[in-house]
Amino acid sequence: MNTFGHLLRVTTFGESHGPAIGCVIDGCPPGIPIAPEDFAHDLARRATGRSRHTSARHEDDQVEILSGVYEGVTTGTPIALLIRNVDARSKDYARIAERFRPGHADYTYWQKYGIRDPRGGGRASARETTMRVAAAVIAKKWLAQRGVTVRGCMVQLGELVPRRHDWDAVEGNPFFWPCAEQVPELEAYMDALRKSGDSVGARIQVVAEGVPPGWGEPVYGKLDAELAAAMMSINAVKGVEIGAGFTAVTQKGSQHRDVMTPQGFLSNHAGGILGGISTGQPIVVSVAFKPTSSLRLPVPGLDVDGNPVEIVTTGRHDPCVGIRATPICEAMLALVLMDQALRHRAQCGDVGPVTPRIPGQMAEC
Amino acid sequence: MNTFGHLLRVTTFGESHGPAIGCVIDGCPPGIPIAPEDFAHDLARRATGRSRHTSARHEDDQVEILSGVYEGVTTGTPIALLIRNVDARSKDYARIAERFRPGHADYTYWQKYGIRDPRGGGRASARETTMRVAAAVIAKKWLAQRGVTVRGCMVQLGELVPRRHDWDAVEGNPFFWPCAEQVPELEAYMDALRKSGDSVGARIQVVAEGVPPGWGEPVYGKLDAELAAAMMSINAVKGVEIGAGFTAVTQKGSQHRDVMTPQGFLSNHAGGILGGISTGQPIVVSVAFKPTSSLRLPVPGLDVDGNPVEIVTTGRHDPCVGIRATPICEAMLALVLMDQALRHRAQCGDVGPVTPRIPGQMAEC
Amino acid sequence: MNTFGHLLRVTTFGESHGPAIGCVIDGCPPGIPIAPEDFAHDLARRATGRSRHTSARHEDDQVEILSGVYEGVTTGTPIALLIRNVDARSKDYARIAERFRPGHADYTYWQKYGIRDPRGGGRASARETTMRVAAAVIAKKWLAQRGVTVRGCMVQLGELVPRRHDWDAVEGNPFFWPCAEQVPELEAYMDALRKSGDSVGARIQVVAEGVPPGWGEPVYGKLDAELAAAMMSINAVKGVEIGAGFTAVTQKGSQHRDVMTPQGFLSNHAGGILGGISTGQPIVVSVAFKPTSSLRLPVPGLDVDGNPVEIVTTGRHDPCVGIRATPICEAMLALVLMDQALRHRAQCGDVGPVTPRIPGQMAEC
Amino acid sequence: MNTFGHLLRVTTFGESHGPAIGCVIDGCPPGIPIAPEDFAHDLARRATGRSRHTSARHEDDQVEILSGVYEGVTTGTPIALLIRNVDARSKDYARIAERFRPGHADYTYWQKYGIRDPRGGGRASARETTMRVAAAVIAKKWLAQRGVTVRGCMVQLGELVPRRHDWDAVEGNPFFWPCAEQVPELEAYMDALRKSGDSVGARIQVVAEGVPPGWGEPVYGKLDAELAAAMMSINAVKGVEIGAGFTAVTQKGSQHRDVMTPQGFLSNHAGGILGGISTGQPIVVSVAFKPTSSLRLPVPGLDVDGNPVEIVTTGRHDPCVGIRATPICEAMLALVLMDQALRHRAQCGDVGPVTPRIPGQMAEC
Repeated sequence: MNTFGHLLRVTTFGESHGPAIGCVIDGCPPGIPIAPEDFAHDLARRATGRSRHTSARHEDDQVEILSGVYEGVTTGTPIALLIRNVDARSKDYARIAERFRPGHADYTYWQKYGIRDPRGGGRASARETTMRVAAAVIAKKWLAQRGVTVRGCMVQLGELVPRRHDWDAVEGNPFFWPCAEQVPELEAYMDALRKSGDSVGARIQVVAEGVPPGWGEPVYGKLDAELAAAMMSINAVKGVEIGAGFTAVTQKGSQHRDVMTPQGFLSNHAGGILGGISTGQPIVVSVAFKPTSSLRLPVPGLDVDGNPVEIVTTGRHDPCVGIRATPICEAMLALVLMDQALRHRAQCGDVGPVTPRIPGQMAEC
Repeated sequence: MNTFGHLLRVTTFGESHGPAIGCVIDGCPPGIPIAPEDFAHDLARRATGRSRHTSARHEDDQVEILSGVYEGVTTGTPIALLIRNVDARSKDYARIAERFRPGHADYTYWQKYGIRDPRGGGRASARETTMRVAAAVIAKKWLAQRGVTVRGCMVQLGELVPRRHDWDAVEGNPFFWPCAEQVPELEAYMDALRKSGDSVGARIQVVAEGVPPGWGEPVYGKLDAELAAAMMSINAVKGVEIGAGFTAVTQKGSQHRDVMTPQGFLSNHAGGILGGISTGQPIVVSVAFKPTSSLRLPVPGLDVDGNPVEIVTTGRHDPCVGIRATPICEAMLALVLMDQALRHRAQCGDVGPVTPRIPGQMAEC
Repeated sequence: MNTFGHLLRVTTFGESHGPAIGCVIDGCPPGIPIAPEDFAHDLARRATGRSRHTSARHEDDQVEILSGVYEGVTTGTPIALLIRNVDARSKDYARIAERFRPGHADYTYWQKYGIRDPRGGGRASARETTMRVAAAVIAKKWLAQRGVTVRGCMVQLGELVPRRHDWDAVEGNPFFWPCAEQVPELEAYMDALRKSGDSVGARIQVVAEGVPPGWGEPVYGKLDAELAAAMMSINAVKGVEIGAGFTAVTQKGSQHRDVMTPQGFLSNHAGGILGGISTGQPIVVSVAFKPTSSLRLPVPGLDVDGNPVEIVTTGRHDPCVGIRATPICEAMLALVLMDQALRHRAQCGDVGPVTPRIPGQMAEC
Repeated sequence: MNTFGHLLRVTTFGESHGPAIGCVIDGCPPGIPIAPEDFAHDLARRATGRSRHTSARHEDDQVEILSGVYEGVTTGTPIALLIRNVDARSKDYARIAERFRPGHADYTYWQKYGIRDPRGGGRASARETTMRVAAAVIAKKWLAQRGVTVRGCMVQLGELVPRRHDWDAVEGNPFFWPCAEQVPELEAYMDALRKSGDSVGARIQVVAEGVPPGWGEPVYGKLDAELAAAMMSINAVKGVEIGAGFTAVTQKGSQHRDVMTPQGFLSNHAGGILGGISTGQPIVVSVAFKPTSSLRLPVPGLDVDGNPVEIVTTGRHDPCVGIRATPICEAMLALVLMDQALRHRAQCGDVGPVTPRIPGQMAEC
């Protein structure tokens, strides 16, 4: 189960401190121009070492295209991408090979398989998400050719929430925060947190615009179901919302339902999905990231023999994994959308929306 | 995509007002005793017409076992279950055949397929969930043989939240509410709501106890990812949380991480899952249900030609779909767990937990 | 694994002597006109009791459409078909419940599952293939809309081979034999065989014409690989050939390779498939059916305790299962082609053949 | 569809003249010892350049293990294997970039995708099978731990058939021929063929011994159906037989059915499979390979504009692809068996054979 998707299938491999990470993208349509440098932008957005607020590990994340591209264009055969790991410091992990960090996958991998690669979290490391971002570069290209764009931002850091929502501010700060004036406040918050040795959670929101109505496969392959699985498969995610999400619990039906007029929907509490199928409105997904469990604050734990030990995590870690999570959530959104688009095309022949197509409008959700 | 699961595969079929609904359960282990009457209890819990707070449609939900069971025991071949629809009143829907109810799948099915069965919501009706509950009766039996139990309750109705959490109270009221003394308050709330013609959302929590450590398939088939998809595939669901869920956004790492001791975990913010694999703690999932969009309050809408019309929904509907949702969420939890158990057995041979197995403890999450 | 296909997915259920058999067809495009009477022709071609050369069991094979069709047209939701079993005589099988017929699945089902439904072969009965033929009626319709036709005939019965190949003769005799003048000879052969209590094998050939170049999914979903699996999944099949098949073993490359000219291919040893992808030539598949193992000639066997017993099979059986196999092989060919067409459309957008399209020519293979 | 298998999933990638070929093996149980040198033996058996009777291309086929193995043992996470291509001579293919070789996938890939990598056959090259052999090294290890062995040999080269069947002779000659005394005859045959510029077909037989009864998934995942697909997915295969195969067409039922006695089966016409499930007898599969279409004998063909051209294939090719096919067929047999074993374990818990287990006996089939 290291494969994501049904018709666009991305299989990832690699451990955090192994020789390399990589992926195979199968089912990709032919004719998409792809070059190694296309991956640089999004991989840099996801990378550690971009600011003092993320792990100090520095990986170049140079992508080698091993197959599936001929003379700069996809051929329809599987596209293999490879990134060598260059800055793994496995000795940092010698002490935890025999003990389980609380809140970590150490214990569960060991229980499941009876063996685990303890170096850097092995397969459970967020390093795996690098390949999701790489694969999604191709999906974003294909979607963009169809007028579909995907973007995201952080909408909560601990207790902090944006005072304004300005998309133009997002790429101008290391937090993907949509309110430029709050950035110094976030910097200070993170500096204090890092100093304390603790970590904190975050909430990310991703949005896809231009999705035509009709994508999504009822009943079990609903667009929202696939998105929920996609987001929850990201390390540290504990919750997923579509549109109004948990706010819908306290809404009345007369308030929640999005009125349709010939000029468009008047709101988007649905988050762009009804009955598991896109409405033509923006797809809006919110994702909760838990705080990192790898802290230098000591904590009681267990060793592999069941004896109590004190755990102090060394190694290099993010005090807030949510800081780098925006491009990862975007990636999963893009991969789901492209996969759903191909599935829709298979069954319905891409006939496109039946009239009347109601103009989509972005409303706060 | 009307199939749920990987090794335990449930394929459902049927429209709300068609001749029948049914399912085929493939991959079920042989040797499980099953009789038609085994389905009655959970189907009654899910049924409409159980109280004045749900739709008045009355279906007997008599299950016919068509295959896969010989002399009262499963044989390993596909189990087909059939329920005839008997109380469909399709004429109620004549008026909406040519128009789209806001907040409903009417519009998106029509956009996707260019055709739709408008009677009772067709395939998009919650009637489909009947078969999930039926299929899960078998999964619950198989899990119970392994010491795994699944249960659930409503933990929010609009703004109302339980004052106490008493599992013994849950089955004693039509809301699956864990605080008996609040039931009159809920009754009054729902009576007023029904009178107003409006609807409201709800939050359901389901819990699985006795799950051994080791179930769940990293990276994309994580137990939490599968649960998120399963829950989000239920009609009207807009959000899913595992353990602390969105609360984790404001937690510090030192607070969120669940300390392990030889006597057990000291908390369960993880909701029983780390790295996508069960920890041995209770699995805890929260689900947000939106308010029903089918209201008798008039609302602007569109007809199939794009003209504005006034929509008044007749037919029989639930003023809070969450009221009947507890057994459905339980069903999805049971189906995911059994599927994951089979997958774990395939790869790891069911060797069971490696020592030390830490005792699971239920903590508030 | 009772589901066939990837995008057009047919899940069958039911035992030979259970209450019913049925199937669920998922992924079918919307807009195909389907009525219960559409199934009659092909089901009659497959049915027993059509001549004295097949089993005397008589089933009406009345198809009930339970879902997925609204006002006579497919809606894109799962299509469930149901056929009640009416002429099962299970008491014929009481004697074999505790013993294993040689050459039968009795023994292997029991070894696999530890339990089996012995009545009429249970799930292993060829009765299951009824639903393949029913499902393929829809596939044949969809293919015909695209100019693709599927047909088949028997090309060997024991040692007998057709003296001429006349497609017009095929439907005029109970053997689907392409040479009318030989039919009396076949009748006499089968009469003698039936009298002797023995059975014999047969070879069926099925052909699809009008398939455009480009269908088939390299590397593991090759059109020929899918066809081989499809045919081998039919009861009693022991061999599958594409085009020249085993004859290719003794061919030289200069003889086997099909020369391409602007006027078309000059031969079709490839059977219409190169590199797993259709060439535009007719797809030609040959299938070997073993002789039925259920004979009234006594044979040494075993009972469930491992003791030697004499087996005499009563019940009603075909002396040559190949006689009814032509529509079944056609069905599998049609299902594979439609599935591959949908897959091709998903990835390549149904752009259709790139020029030059070489005219396909049927050549003996 | 570059993934093979259901629970043991092998995804391959790479073109013949691209930078590398590789695979990802997902679902592999933990705890299997694997080292890079384990792959050498089988890869050498499959390699070109082993004798003058195969292509002169020389690849070292050095396997790099990129993931999934920690301290020499599989961890349950995906195993990525990489082989760099070192001896590609792409300039040999410049002339065929604009033209289609008859009998080749050139034409169909171009029709399907509108683009193709012409160098060395691109993805359609038999070079891809290298990774099948590599992946199967792990499967063979796992099977051997359970007493299951897989081996194969060539049983026909053009018109030549073995005079004796001596397994000990097979590995002593470059043809995998089971009769040592005929080897000079085969050498002379191939020398003459190569000189003539032509090619020839071959038949390979592979056998698995020690398979317990019970493996195989009815109805569509039958062991024989999966084997047929597996073998037909190999380049140049045109036919597959299980056990008696096409010989069963002329057999009587009284002759074909394998009698069961307490001492074992008295024959193995079934090839070890009944009802799609293993019987405990040896699994016997025969595979027909067509003659290579890449000949230096000129032949009429077409260019990409549909104009007639003369095709003379240069590059390095095998005059009989069957010569190197034995390890490839073994690989597919091993991969199918391990996959089926895991599937059986998932559903049936690996309870193993129910009594009576009849001893398996190898009989000529």
